[in-house]
Amino acid sequence: MTAVRVVAFGGGHGLGASLRALRHAAKQIDLDITAIVTVGDDGGSSGRLRAERDALLPPGDLRQALAALAADDPSRQRTAQLLQYRFGGSDSLAGHAVGNLLLLGLMEMLGDPVDALDHAAAMVGARGRVLPMARHAVGIEADVLGADPARPGEVVTVQGQHAVAVALGHVEAVRLEPADPPVCEQAIEAIRAADWLIFGPGSWYTSVLPHLLVPRLAEAIITSPARRLVTLNLAADNETLGLSVADHLAALRWYLPALRADTVLADAKWVGEPEPVHRAAETLGARLVLAPLAVADGSPRHDPESLGVALVPVLGAAR
Amino acid sequence: MTAVRVVAFGGGHGLGASLRALRHAAKQIDLDITAIVTVGDDGGSSGRLRAERDALLPPGDLRQALAALAADDPSRQRTAQLLQYRFGGSDSLAGHAVGNLLLLGLMEMLGDPVDALDHAAAMVGARGRVLPMARHAVGIEADVLGADPARPGEVVTVQGQHAVAVALGHVEAVRLEPADPPVCEQAIEAIRAADWLIFGPGSWYTSVLPHLLVPRLAEAIITSPARRLVTLNLAADNETLGLSVADHLAALRWYLPALRADTVLADAKWVGEPEPVHRAAETLGARLVLAPLAVADGSPRHDPESLGVALVPVLGAAR
Repeated sequence: MTAVRVVAFGGGHGLGASLRALRHAAKQIDLDITAIVTVGDDGGSSGRLRAERDALLPPGDLRQALAALAADDPSRQRTAQLLQYRFGGSDSLAGHAVGNLLLLGLMEMLGDPVDALDHAAAMVGARGRVLPMARHAVGIEADVLGADPARPGEVVTVQGQHAVAVALGHVEAVRLEPADPPVCEQAIEAIRAADWLIFGPGSWYTSVLPHLLVPRLAEAIITSPARRLVTLNLAADNETLGLSVADHLAALRWYLPALRADTVLADAKWVGEPEPVHRAAETLGARLVLAPLAVADGSPRHDPESLGVALVPVLGAAR
Repeated sequence: MTAVRVVAFGGGHGLGASLRALRHAAKQIDLDITAIVTVGDDGGSSGRLRAERDALLPPGDLRQALAALAADDPSRQRTAQLLQYRFGGSDSLAGHAVGNLLLLGLMEMLGDPVDALDHAAAMVGARGRVLPMARHAVGIEADVLGADPARPGEVVTVQGQHAVAVALGHVEAVRLEPADPPVCEQAIEAIRAADWLIFGPGSWYTSVLPHLLVPRLAEAIITSPARRLVTLNLAADNETLGLSVADHLAALRWYLPALRADTVLADAKWVGEPEPVHRAAETLGARLVLAPLAVADGSPRHDPESLGVALVPVLGAAR
């Protein structure tokens, strides 16, 4: 049997959880994993590297995806731990993750972001490939109703991924700058060849939706013969406060009306009343699958192993 | 046949040439290579990391040794190239080598310098082990006659490895601070178990002699049953200007009177009149071996392949 080719879209911790879950699932079904990662980060270490060095790509989300895909042996896990290690202190290195500096060096040295990511993947023995959503950094901005507490009824334009992610209020529209960034052909090819495309979990407006706003990625997603899975978040974060679970699915259709899905995966407990989610899934053409996905301590985080267990019957099902 | 256990002492480019030569020699005789590296660097990237972050060890010389021992396959060579890649530009990262930041991160994360170096060695598939001369950074200072051009007849104390390395004038005495730094037991064990100890090439006062000034290393060197090889420099640098080739050998004995050697290796052309060098080698109990060791372009640098060819009959000779 040939491997099931899976492309996971996202960024940050959400994509990390999705990739770790796929690693678990890969113990039971043969998976060929590609991560396509947002490149809008303008906060923290990545933001400083963009501002001070004009970094080709903000490395933070790419680094997290690489660490999530690192091989299990102790040496590769230690290399992954090193990539995630963040300098403390108060000097100019403080706050930078070692992996961000390593990716920056590789991108500068090799010139090509895909060559750089493929080499970093080899360094951690990655069980999959990590590709950027675009060939260079993009800006994210959003029109947010009530973002300014002093003007609760007004729509304010919020600039930058970090600002959008922490903005309070209701996101009315989200845009990329530039609107049509250049993409990696390797990402387009992976989408075309995929058996499954996976969206979420993650910060909806800043990690999950941005891929749908890149015209060439959106076209490849719509025209790919792959089945599509949406993994819903467990709880709302700042940027989606006031958005119901069903609203999350509506947002996907709003930004890419032609998007259809096969499966929507949600946590049986966190989803709350399932009926509106069922109906929202149906508008995408998808069936809703409820399963225990959260960590045991009651916090709203996906447990990679539980999510992996839930993914096996979905990804392994015959068409 | 068991491997010939070789310990190479030094720092910087000189040690790099020695290790690359050993890699070439290892194609013909089975070698088990350990590098014991100076930890006095206070210039450039390493110096900044010492000053700004109180780095446990200055990483620059250790990084160069790791890069020299990297495996030949393209992926490990690319990782070695990444370690050596130096950020350009004018921001706070400018001038730092990626490998220095990676070693700094590993040392901070793991706490133990040997664990950190062993992991970095695994990352480049190193064909040998890299150990530091001491468990923490040391200072180097020297009394230099004529270091101050305004006072040509006076002895001036020059502080810091970098300042000593570039000082003009005649080095009268060189000291470590602290005088008895803690050493790695792994280095002591490697010296005790060695078949050959190799000194030079390299900056004589700042890369070759410092090991002899560390009391526990000196004792292990003197009492080791290993044979000893001195590889002479091709030309004088600033710190040894006015020192003849024979003077280099005399300096070894001056700082460690009990030191005896078996072989002194020198370039047949660059050594000049061989008779005084023969005699100086004899005072160490060594025979002088002359061979072509320099690069072909006429510059005073060792060619790793030529040096490797010259090392094979020396290291492979029966006792």
